Amino acid sequence: MSGGEAAAIVSSEPFADRLAALVEERRSQICLGLDPDPESLSREGAGAAGGAPAAAAAAGVAATCRRLIAAAGPACVAVKLQLACFERLGAAGWGALESTASVAREAGLLVIADGKRGDVPITAAAYGQALVGETATPWGPVRGLGADAFTANPLLGADAMEPLIDAAAAAGAGLFALVRTTNPGAGELQDQPSGSPLHERLAAIVAAEADRLAGSTGLSGMGAVVGATAPELIGRLRELMPRAIFLIPGVGAQGGRAQDLGPAFGPGAAAALVSVSRGIAADPDPAAAAERLRTEVWDASGA
Amino acid sequence: MSGGEAAAIVSSEPFADRLAALVEERRSQICLGLDPDPESLSREGAGAAGGAPAAAAAAGVAATCRRLIAAAGPACVAVKLQLACFERLGAAGWGALESTASVAREAGLLVIADGKRGDVPITAAAYGQALVGETATPWGPVRGLGADAFTANPLLGADAMEPLIDAAAAAGAGLFALVRTTNPGAGELQDQPSGSPLHERLAAIVAAEADRLAGSTGLSGMGAVVGATAPELIGRLRELMPRAIFLIPGVGAQGGRAQDLGPAFGPGAAAALVSVSRGIAADPDPAAAAERLRTEVWDASGA
Repeated sequence: MSGGEAAAIVSSEPFADRLAALVEERRSQICLGLDPDPESLSREGAGAAGGAPAAAAAAGVAATCRRLIAAAGPACVAVKLQLACFERLGAAGWGALESTASVAREAGLLVIADGKRGDVPITAAAYGQALVGETATPWGPVRGLGADAFTANPLLGADAMEPLIDAAAAAGAGLFALVRTTNPGAGELQDQPSGSPLHERLAAIVAAEADRLAGSTGLSGMGAVVGATAPELIGRLRELMPRAIFLIPGVGAQGGRAQDLGPAFGPGAAAALVSVSRGIAADPDPAAAAERLRTEVWDASGA
Repeated sequence: MSGGEAAAIVSSEPFADRLAALVEERRSQICLGLDPDPESLSREGAGAAGGAPAAAAAAGVAATCRRLIAAAGPACVAVKLQLACFERLGAAGWGALESTASVAREAGLLVIADGKRGDVPITAAAYGQALVGETATPWGPVRGLGADAFTANPLLGADAMEPLIDAAAAAGAGLFALVRTTNPGAGELQDQPSGSPLHERLAAIVAAEADRLAGSTGLSGMGAVVGATAPELIGRLRELMPRAIFLIPGVGAQGGRAQDLGPAFGPGAAAALVSVSRGIAADPDPAAAAERLRTEVWDASGA
């Protein structure tokens, strides 16, 4: 209840306790999943919706969710909002997401944001702000979605989960890490003990689909994110994914070096893209920083 | 160029070819990463921004990105938009994301949406609509972000990647699957060959952090998504994560059964939440469907 001094949002009772109390009170462990499908809306059902299709569809989605919450909510303790289903309506969809979360809260339901987010620590912190925290700006703080809990993808490992856990702890929220998913192919990676590192199994998935997004030069848009921070792996991963375009973060602030990237460019000058954020944006002269990096990488590519 | 009949968006040349041409033309493999930090904006820099903090900050973020693209763009071939950094400003942030993508396109740059999305096939299809496709609605189609490529998290396996690849193929887009990320802890899961299934290693991460989000009953909001579709794993996962609240999808349409969920509730009636979407929303009487599920799960919980 007291909240750490770094907590942007006033901490409430832990999610686990709020859930336990609600489960007891309602004798229910049901979470109403809301995955609204704009295609199935009826024009009438959405009320007076004029203007752009996105705004009309977002209003329809919000109305559908409101009706479902009113009908099924009393037998449930939580809603799970499928972020993808809202995001596909753009900014208007995000507005419908926010209003649906409010409606669920008013119905006494806990709100679980199901976006399966996961990223490197600095970006994971931004997802924490978006889902359960707030973002400082010169115009005052911007509140995030205010979810009671959210889903997270732990593929990046424990250090990348840390900022998400911090954000949850500060907000009295919970989080659900993907451990065993429901899709038919889930076991393929999640259940197999294997003699080969996971990154090689992920690489095999990428390589197997190279034809699907192939270009005329032999390169494929079925690409792979391969960090510059483990340069000793790049050659092997190129071997395993001979046609994939690599997207390579990690040069600069994170310690990766342009000159180690040669093996990524084996199939050609366009076989890898080097993504730089802080190294350009935080430079007093971003144009010069970008041009310097361009030359370094172009040279490393051997093109 | 012809486009499959199912392609919602007119296909263009494959991403791989558009990239190759641009790399050659600009002699560059640099991708400008845009991870805007609203806290670092100056009030002046954002122009005339009145109204809500979110709208003002979103305008500031868009202006910052525009300046960076103008300065560094000529040495680059692509921008990578960090979705988390926009999402934390809510609907206004999503608007800034859309306008930044337009600005980048006008500068002749390819747009990579970096959201590391990944989900079960039906939801993955919705992410495909959001990022490179469009969504049908009774009011007409709603265009997604229109990215040239996007990042994807392949933890769920090949079948969950399939709808993302389909969406990319239909749009002439590319995708980058996470294979080896840059964070210091990346190797922990991605590099280790291991005798134990990945789901057990993910469970260990969850269990190790149980104290952080613990409630007073012993349950922890450091929870886990555990599908009802592999009921034989639930007991073992409960053993490995004795305090985690489980979020359990997969009952109903996907074949999971409420009566198999008993082991999930070992630590108490609030130790698991059963998430149901289609089983409630697609029922002609959602209130009755929710109540029926509530009873089945409550009984299975042994509470």
